[in-house]
Amino acid sequence: MVEIDASAMMESIGKQAKTAAGCMRMADTKAKNSALHLAATIIRRQMNEILKANSMDMKLAEARGVEAALLDRLLLNGDRIEAMAEGLEQIAALPDPVGAIDNLSYRPSGIQVGHMRVPLGVIGMIYESRPNVTADAAGLCLKSGNAVILRGGSESIHSNRAIAACLRRALVDAGLSQNSVQLIDSTDRALVGALLTSDSYVDVIIPRGGKSLIERVTAESRVPVIKHLDGICHVYIDASADPAMALAIAVNAKTHRYGVCNAMETLLVHQDAAAECLPSIAQAMIDKGVELRGCERTQAICVELPVKTATEADWASEYLAAIVSVLIVDDLTAAIAHIERYASGHTESIVTADYDSGQRFLREVDSSSVMWNASTRFADGFEYGLGAEIGISTDRLHVRGPVGLEGLTTQKWIVLGHGEIRS
Amino acid sequence: MVEIDASAMMESIGKQAKTAAGCMRMADTKAKNSALHLAATIIRRQMNEILKANSMDMKLAEARGVEAALLDRLLLNGDRIEAMAEGLEQIAALPDPVGAIDNLSYRPSGIQVGHMRVPLGVIGMIYESRPNVTADAAGLCLKSGNAVILRGGSESIHSNRAIAACLRRALVDAGLSQNSVQLIDSTDRALVGALLTSDSYVDVIIPRGGKSLIERVTAESRVPVIKHLDGICHVYIDASADPAMALAIAVNAKTHRYGVCNAMETLLVHQDAAAECLPSIAQAMIDKGVELRGCERTQAICVELPVKTATEADWASEYLAAIVSVLIVDDLTAAIAHIERYASGHTESIVTADYDSGQRFLREVDSSSVMWNASTRFADGFEYGLGAEIGISTDRLHVRGPVGLEGLTTQKWIVLGHGEIRS
Repeated sequence: MVEIDASAMMESIGKQAKTAAGCMRMADTKAKNSALHLAATIIRRQMNEILKANSMDMKLAEARGVEAALLDRLLLNGDRIEAMAEGLEQIAALPDPVGAIDNLSYRPSGIQVGHMRVPLGVIGMIYESRPNVTADAAGLCLKSGNAVILRGGSESIHSNRAIAACLRRALVDAGLSQNSVQLIDSTDRALVGALLTSDSYVDVIIPRGGKSLIERVTAESRVPVIKHLDGICHVYIDASADPAMALAIAVNAKTHRYGVCNAMETLLVHQDAAAECLPSIAQAMIDKGVELRGCERTQAICVELPVKTATEADWASEYLAAIVSVLIVDDLTAAIAHIERYASGHTESIVTADYDSGQRFLREVDSSSVMWNASTRFADGFEYGLGAEIGISTDRLHVRGPVGLEGLTTQKWIVLGHGEIRS
Repeated sequence: MVEIDASAMMESIGKQAKTAAGCMRMADTKAKNSALHLAATIIRRQMNEILKANSMDMKLAEARGVEAALLDRLLLNGDRIEAMAEGLEQIAALPDPVGAIDNLSYRPSGIQVGHMRVPLGVIGMIYESRPNVTADAAGLCLKSGNAVILRGGSESIHSNRAIAACLRRALVDAGLSQNSVQLIDSTDRALVGALLTSDSYVDVIIPRGGKSLIERVTAESRVPVIKHLDGICHVYIDASADPAMALAIAVNAKTHRYGVCNAMETLLVHQDAAAECLPSIAQAMIDKGVELRGCERTQAICVELPVKTATEADWASEYLAAIVSVLIVDDLTAAIAHIERYASGHTESIVTADYDSGQRFLREVDSSSVMWNASTRFADGFEYGLGAEIGISTDRLHVRGPVGLEGLTTQKWIVLGHGEIRS
């Protein structure tokens, strides 16, 4: 491997990104959409090149004995490449958030004051093995008028290079700066460190990947980070819950997909609903191959079912697997207290027919998504109408929950006057 | 001075703040307003105690030979204490942002999705000598449902202690937790470091003070910071500007107050407007005692007036004084390029009667406030209708420009369902 001066390389990438961001900020909607459509076309045309690059990544990964799940995330095929192209066309079809003016209103002084939505600037995107993130993230950053610096996983470098080349060619063909999409074309880990300390060029870092990646980024970054940590999501079945609805929501929240951050990990049940609701829910979970870990009261009620004993560690676990922990609570207050202590602030849902319980839950639970009579699986950019998402934020500042185009922008104040001065 | 274990002390303060924030998040508007009114009453009743504490601070500061400007900022008197009490009553009169629901709308799946405004959590406020910030910041944090940890300047410790005691008593009398307002009751600088690294307890740091304070906070903080750096503000007089309006706005922006961040520091003038507009503006500035530093073309046009030669350093200076730099530019593009290079992203204003120029300036200038035919002095929380401001942000994430109650909150997603599950 060639020796690289990481900070000099990042300095050069950062400067180019900053200049490109200045142009992208002013780019009109038509040019941005045209770049997205061209990128989709070029990706389809270059399918063979992309597949060739991907098979090089696959061979190297296999030779390194990489595990099967990671190999599957790394793999591209015709369908996945077509999905990437369609994703870019869908982003082109979304409304352009940039330049939108909100709440313009007159003040007693005579000036009109409002907000205009503007791009964030330069976004540093750090992600792991999925090569489709290269196209998705670049597309979202492009549409929201930002420049992006992409740093993908080292195992997908050839695929990412081929995809990024398509996007850069499309930008040029649309009359925009190719440097609004830059890929860090080196697998040297020092470049991640250099990116995280480029606070004069980079406005925000978005990491997408496992817990250890997010933790490294958070610890090292001098640039603000929009981060996504665990999803320890809860469904709480209240005393007045409709049993059929409770069953449907609990089963969907746990079993619709296991490896996703908005899957339920802990089921909370009001003591007065447990006898009626819990056995059928437990049975349905078991039928789907889910392992149950319950509190003593749960084991007593589901005495004929295989329910392991839940330990303290279970309440704090994001299983991302066919396992669920179950706790019977005295009342809503106890449920909210359990959530306050163990939830990761991602998504919590109450099932209740009682107005006061639902209102209290919505107000008091402090998670990025709080639901009433719906499956936690709805916590998703597409389901919320964002059109696409670049990630899900469990942070508190700037943006919480699914992050779409608007989360990649900020607002400036605008003032329309008629010669007003302050007296 | 007693030896202090800074991290143990901050740990204890942080834990108490976190618990208090959990209660404040759920506090109803009536209780919060009642605490604000009680605080105003108690501050008025305790006026003599506060004055006594303040005179202790003043004596110590005088003995240390502190400069006159700082002494004036430190000084409290009957009027200033009354203004503090009135400020709290004004905050009570503002609408409560917490719990407000936005954009609740149906999705194709049947769920209703919207945003609910919620407090940020625990706010760390680091400020310098003005003791009134203790009451203002605590009042704003209280109304927005947050807990606050206050760290004032060491020279105002006795005054801050007396004011914070009034607020804490009011919280108790209103049935809220006194720990939602905590003052770091020590002048040990190690405590600032401990606060900046308390990322498990503190959600955001807001520093208010001089450049060196802000820079220290930004460099050391592991907690997200809402920072306010320089205000190098520009007024640009376009070719089509009305000369009388240009004169009024330029003079107001520079001379209404000198030591404020929204004062104009550089005047840009289109070459076609210079001959008509500039001499009268320069004369008016000189009449008010302002020192002019101009480019060569400015000196040529104002040949009979005392205009010093502006240097490169002038374009990058926040004078905060009766000095203005003046540059004649070829056109709007050159004005925007100058702003892009030298402005601090605070506030820029164009004076023009031309629709296209105004539109372009609004869209292309990337500052937290961009104005058209108005004085930069309007960049202010009260003038914008926020009711009060805790600071002005020159950051890009979360909040830009004047920060009022809404800037001290964030949003969570809420989903109202009817038993929907994902298919």
